[in-house]
Amino acid sequence: MGELLGLRCLTCGRDYDAWSVDYFCPHCGPVAGALTVEYEYRVLARRLGPASFADTRRNSLWRYDSLLPVSGEYAVPLRAGGTPIYDCPTLAKELGLGRLWVKDESQHPTASCKDRGTAVAVAAARMLEREAVCCASTGNAATSLAGFAAAAGFPCFIFVPKNAPRAKIAQLLAFGATVFAVDGTYDQASSLALRAAEKFGWYNRSDGLNPMVVEGNKTAALEVWEELHGEVPDFALVAVGDGSVIGGICKGFLELGKVGLSGKVPKVYGVQAQGAAAVAHAFARFQDGRPILPAEERAETLADSIRVGKPMDALRAVRAVAETGGGYVTVSDEEIVAGAQELARRVGVFAEPSGAAPFAGLLRLLREGTVPEGARVVLFITGSGLKDPEGALRGLPEPTVIPPQLEAVDEVLGER
Amino acid sequence: MGELLGLRCLTCGRDYDAWSVDYFCPHCGPVAGALTVEYEYRVLARRLGPASFADTRRNSLWRYDSLLPVSGEYAVPLRAGGTPIYDCPTLAKELGLGRLWVKDESQHPTASCKDRGTAVAVAAARMLEREAVCCASTGNAATSLAGFAAAAGFPCFIFVPKNAPRAKIAQLLAFGATVFAVDGTYDQASSLALRAAEKFGWYNRSDGLNPMVVEGNKTAALEVWEELHGEVPDFALVAVGDGSVIGGICKGFLELGKVGLSGKVPKVYGVQAQGAAAVAHAFARFQDGRPILPAEERAETLADSIRVGKPMDALRAVRAVAETGGGYVTVSDEEIVAGAQELARRVGVFAEPSGAAPFAGLLRLLREGTVPEGARVVLFITGSGLKDPEGALRGLPEPTVIPPQLEAVDEVLGER
Repeated sequence: MGELLGLRCLTCGRDYDAWSVDYFCPHCGPVAGALTVEYEYRVLARRLGPASFADTRRNSLWRYDSLLPVSGEYAVPLRAGGTPIYDCPTLAKELGLGRLWVKDESQHPTASCKDRGTAVAVAAARMLEREAVCCASTGNAATSLAGFAAAAGFPCFIFVPKNAPRAKIAQLLAFGATVFAVDGTYDQASSLALRAAEKFGWYNRSDGLNPMVVEGNKTAALEVWEELHGEVPDFALVAVGDGSVIGGICKGFLELGKVGLSGKVPKVYGVQAQGAAAVAHAFARFQDGRPILPAEERAETLADSIRVGKPMDALRAVRAVAETGGGYVTVSDEEIVAGAQELARRVGVFAEPSGAAPFAGLLRLLREGTVPEGARVVLFITGSGLKDPEGALRGLPEPTVIPPQLEAVDEVLGER
Repeated sequence: MGELLGLRCLTCGRDYDAWSVDYFCPHCGPVAGALTVEYEYRVLARRLGPASFADTRRNSLWRYDSLLPVSGEYAVPLRAGGTPIYDCPTLAKELGLGRLWVKDESQHPTASCKDRGTAVAVAAARMLEREAVCCASTGNAATSLAGFAAAAGFPCFIFVPKNAPRAKIAQLLAFGATVFAVDGTYDQASSLALRAAEKFGWYNRSDGLNPMVVEGNKTAALEVWEELHGEVPDFALVAVGDGSVIGGICKGFLELGKVGLSGKVPKVYGVQAQGAAAVAHAFARFQDGRPILPAEERAETLADSIRVGKPMDALRAVRAVAETGGGYVTVSDEEIVAGAQELARRVGVFAEPSGAAPFAGLLRLLREGTVPEGARVVLFITGSGLKDPEGALRGLPEPTVIPPQLEAVDEVLGER
């Protein structure tokens, strides 16, 4: 368990004792009052070395519990973290990159990177002796919470807009969650979850609300650092919806510097869909010296996991990216689908559309010259294509039907 | 790389030099002439100790390459093996078991245990300098091969009956495989694959045909042994379709004995659907002293991954299970669906129906008294529920629709 100092408001900078507040700064309210977990970095710098995490018994994010707010003794058995990273030399060469790595975050118990944040939030709920958990989400965060709540034996309450896709609701039901299908917008479901959590004492895991989620998310960066034997890449790309995942990844890379384990921070780039780019637009405002919030606009993209109009963690997602020297890039739905197909065909990783967005973003940053020749790049693939096969597979050709004869195989091969 | 001795025919016992034959004994033909890989076990026993596999750089099945026919240097980057195992003390207690572990094999690059066999077969293809790979299958094995072929840069040819589900075909296409939709039965597709592989020099990964697949599959047992610190369980349960997965798991546990790493072999039980029980029936014949083959009958079950009427690896699946002192158990589709839901709700593992069959099988073996009180049991969960959400979710209730008001939440909770 880390040298936990407390919680700091991202807007007013007020400090709060650890565990004295659950979600946001009471002065600044939700969204603006997002909190970040602070540690005694100087103490950690003295204590930690490159071998500190080489605990072979833990191939999960709990190997980093010296940099986490909760001890691994509160973890549920489901494995969060410990996802593979793939070196892609052929593709790197073709793209003119020095190195290209794919960090496959879809290989998690509920098939998305959300399991990292959930693991830490659910462990916190156990440590705090809360009796139930909840969140508002139509997608991967809800599924993740439902799965980990099942493993923890927690009642789990999920708030979704009633028009949420049947398949995603179904998976929630399988994990035994109580699902409230709210006859209203996603925002209404979200604010209802907040009030219900307060009234019934449920611990709320919603992205952009619970600072513990960011602590889990940051471990993806710690793993990359460890897997590359301390040599962090020049660029890291990840898809952005609410902003908690990229906020965590930036925090992880930045904290490695604060505790003296890494002298370098990669430039982290957020990738958004052109039709759902609230955080990218907020980042542009921030660079012009204008206020980040409110970040709210229409959201249209086939990549449902990043179809977010009112990002709950925009403040963190903008500030943290700026601190790494990175930025934002937007891509069209066509580029996202092409990216997903290229990733599957070339690397063997079948991502959901949002998960493949970083690949599309990389191609654009290369064309723009933002990512220079010879750069070392890591792509975080955040969710599995099995979550949305139709989205990932748009426009693929039908297979060839043949009679069961060898001549027919010959014929098809001859035509190629 | 292991002390490879050669290949032995399961029927006539003839020995072949390593790599001199690809698939089956030329004297006995396919199915009956299934081959098993033999090692210099005495040499390995002198060389291997409990710490031999503690290579922290390899959290994949290649950590066991001293017991594999191919060196890890031929592996593609996709991670096969290194799946988590979950200790389930509460559920164990309720069931009267001493221990219950769930080995979640769905956490693989293509979301099924088939990636183990594929990893070794594709590495063999690279070592043998073959130029393309193929297989016949409608399901997880095909997807697995397509994914690993993509990572290897191999052309990949898949033979499926033309009525195979669109979603499974779509995933194959995403990985860039050439899919032949055969206007005929699965058996016709399978025999066409065999002839095409011969004609065009493709390396065939089909279950029950390629002995390298079994070598990959056996590493699931090696992992359980290592994860439980050398204390193998009393019983191991796994779903059975063609029979290559259970054949491999038995071989893994048995080889640990042959090389002196374990003094105990768990009783391995195969679980089949009542409507698709060709291997279970073959096992019963074997126990009565009657011939195992031909094993062929009608197959009807909603668990599509084990809907196999003509199991290609029946001989191995029967013999190997008998050698462990285990057996077979059949369960109804209702028990399979209930098992999948219980597993999701209690453990947080969302399995496809066939993947959850071992849980249903365990309940039956407990009722029968075959698994006694206090026993230590491991369940292998072979595939993800995301591969077939509709199958896993049959009969679940619809969520409650409410207006976006706190009173409505109150009301629903009050009714519970």
